[in-house]
Amino acid sequence: MATATEADAMRRAVALAARALGATSPNPVVGCVILGPQGTVLGEGWHRRAGGPHAEAEALAAASAAGHDVRGGTAVVTLEPCNHTGRTGPCAQALIDAGIARVVYAVADPTDTATGGAATLAAAGVATEAGLLEDEAAAGNAAWLTSVRRERPFVLWKYAATLDGRSAAADGTSRWITSADSRADVHRLRAEADAVVVGSGTLRADDPHLAARDRDSAVQPLRVVVDTHASVKPGARVLDDAAPTLIAVGEDADTGHLPGVDVVRLPRAGAGRGGLDVPALLAELYGRGVRSVLLEGGPALAGSFLAAGAVDRVVGYLAPALLGAGPAALGDAGVGTIAGALRLEVTDVARLGPDLRITAVPTASATAPEEN
Amino acid sequence: MATATEADAMRRAVALAARALGATSPNPVVGCVILGPQGTVLGEGWHRRAGGPHAEAEALAAASAAGHDVRGGTAVVTLEPCNHTGRTGPCAQALIDAGIARVVYAVADPTDTATGGAATLAAAGVATEAGLLEDEAAAGNAAWLTSVRRERPFVLWKYAATLDGRSAAADGTSRWITSADSRADVHRLRAEADAVVVGSGTLRADDPHLAARDRDSAVQPLRVVVDTHASVKPGARVLDDAAPTLIAVGEDADTGHLPGVDVVRLPRAGAGRGGLDVPALLAELYGRGVRSVLLEGGPALAGSFLAAGAVDRVVGYLAPALLGAGPAALGDAGVGTIAGALRLEVTDVARLGPDLRITAVPTASATAPEEN
Repeated sequence: MATATEADAMRRAVALAARALGATSPNPVVGCVILGPQGTVLGEGWHRRAGGPHAEAEALAAASAAGHDVRGGTAVVTLEPCNHTGRTGPCAQALIDAGIARVVYAVADPTDTATGGAATLAAAGVATEAGLLEDEAAAGNAAWLTSVRRERPFVLWKYAATLDGRSAAADGTSRWITSADSRADVHRLRAEADAVVVGSGTLRADDPHLAARDRDSAVQPLRVVVDTHASVKPGARVLDDAAPTLIAVGEDADTGHLPGVDVVRLPRAGAGRGGLDVPALLAELYGRGVRSVLLEGGPALAGSFLAAGAVDRVVGYLAPALLGAGPAALGDAGVGTIAGALRLEVTDVARLGPDLRITAVPTASATAPEEN
Repeated sequence: MATATEADAMRRAVALAARALGATSPNPVVGCVILGPQGTVLGEGWHRRAGGPHAEAEALAAASAAGHDVRGGTAVVTLEPCNHTGRTGPCAQALIDAGIARVVYAVADPTDTATGGAATLAAAGVATEAGLLEDEAAAGNAAWLTSVRRERPFVLWKYAATLDGRSAAADGTSRWITSADSRADVHRLRAEADAVVVGSGTLRADDPHLAARDRDSAVQPLRVVVDTHASVKPGARVLDDAAPTLIAVGEDADTGHLPGVDVVRLPRAGAGRGGLDVPALLAELYGRGVRSVLLEGGPALAGSFLAAGAVDRVVGYLAPALLGAGPAALGDAGVGTIAGALRLEVTDVARLGPDLRITAVPTASATAPEEN
């Protein structure tokens, strides 16, 4: 049975893990706190980036640097310590070698390659306990855990609209529907995502930059434009060097005007839809190590993702304003009648300045087409 | 300086007043609590319906029926006691005659006919104090106070929509976008309103009944259909005898198929808009004693009211669902560009079952066209 001190340490570990959201893919975020036999914090660490030390190694190194003896101590870690040698050695063995007597972790490792850490620890005589604050830790790793389960990136669709669901006025103007607080929050979402995806319509209308503010380029999200006919112009802001960019085009698109640009050719969507095949796009991104996608629109692309059952979370920024005309935030999602509505569950409502931020997830039935 | 006991009594008086929302027009809702010299509650009452006893008279009668002597006591009342003889005598004089020594009220009476009660009380040697819990009491009387100030009924626009702003699916189906909890809340709004207004499009699409459930017919709202071309059919549910009904038509409409139906002829809207002139409709309703209107749509009528600056509060029931197609909750409101968006301030967000209820009021600039 975990102690209150261990629960406090796990909360801290979850917070540490979150610092690296957007920087660790294809790895999860992980946080670790090393406690001495009397419950003193000896060291803490988190996995900062793919290829860098794991959280357990960081925490052990921090304890060592502070001159602490961790033998007989407890490692509190958000994810089951890994059991395999990748770019770094297995964490389970590192904990054994350090003389750790007990390991408390929140979430079991679901991957074929890394699982088994708990068994290795137990075989070496280390006491292990699973499931402490599992829900909190899983929520902090939702994108990675979803990507492992679905074998495609986690997709968060973000939209901004008025209370009557318009994303722009009748003349196309949209700056600024939502407040500075909401826009800052969107930059946080970008920073936490591995890739930001927009359609060519949004590109033409807004010429967006899509990079995250105040982030070094090493952790900028991949900027992805779904551009069936390769309509992007060479001078578009999205093609600058602030972050990497991928242009997804149809198999027959002419890309002669885009020398040196990273272009991927994908099949067209089936079933009478325009645009590219969403599962093919997500498979391409997954293959590039992308585990979380921020889908920023526009309405047609969002409709395609929803119709494909490929949205895992919806974040709507609703401005307290009414327009009565202008483009809707969401276009055709393959729903013709009320019984086919894509039903969600609201998981959070927050005020951001004058705006509301509504977070919702598809209900089980809404994602059924994909899970069957 | 009012005491804590008086503040408690005022809270109670505000709650008592709210019981009669929808039943007192053209009068306000008012609640009253009579306290003895030691702060004991001797009697309480509220204005139940237009033409019935005022709150002060109810409270004095309740105290008397319980055998209490109110001489030297305090009357705590949500609105300044009236000074005029209408269908009942002036409350200020009734309080003086009863030997009340002190009167604490929340909101000053803004009307020309009834104001002056406090002065009458003071001239008779009764101590008076104004402003206790003024904001709460004013909020409870928002519709009446707004109608006095604007000389037209207070208008609450209610809509139900998906998160992407659709009020129905592409095939027109809309039962049920929102939950049973939200629909029950709409019945509460109907019960609290003097009139419920819909457009002919909603009538054709839904054949709504518009009466409030579980209310006796004496306090049913007036059902109003804005029906420029008198397209309502004699068998429409809105024409049954569950509640009174008014059909507002254009001056040239043929109403020969509606014998015995209460019909009012109004000028057409100007400025290239379809439908009827909204200020003329509101003036007609005001003349009939209507002080609060629940505008239930559809989108075109809501757009006309908003364009006329004639919406005082917006209540949106947002279902956690996405449609991607289908009619929008709000139609043309005369806004062509983002700078002209009708800006609101969110005053409340509540969860109703799975849905969100968002309450908002126009910001000062949004109602400026009307106030100039």
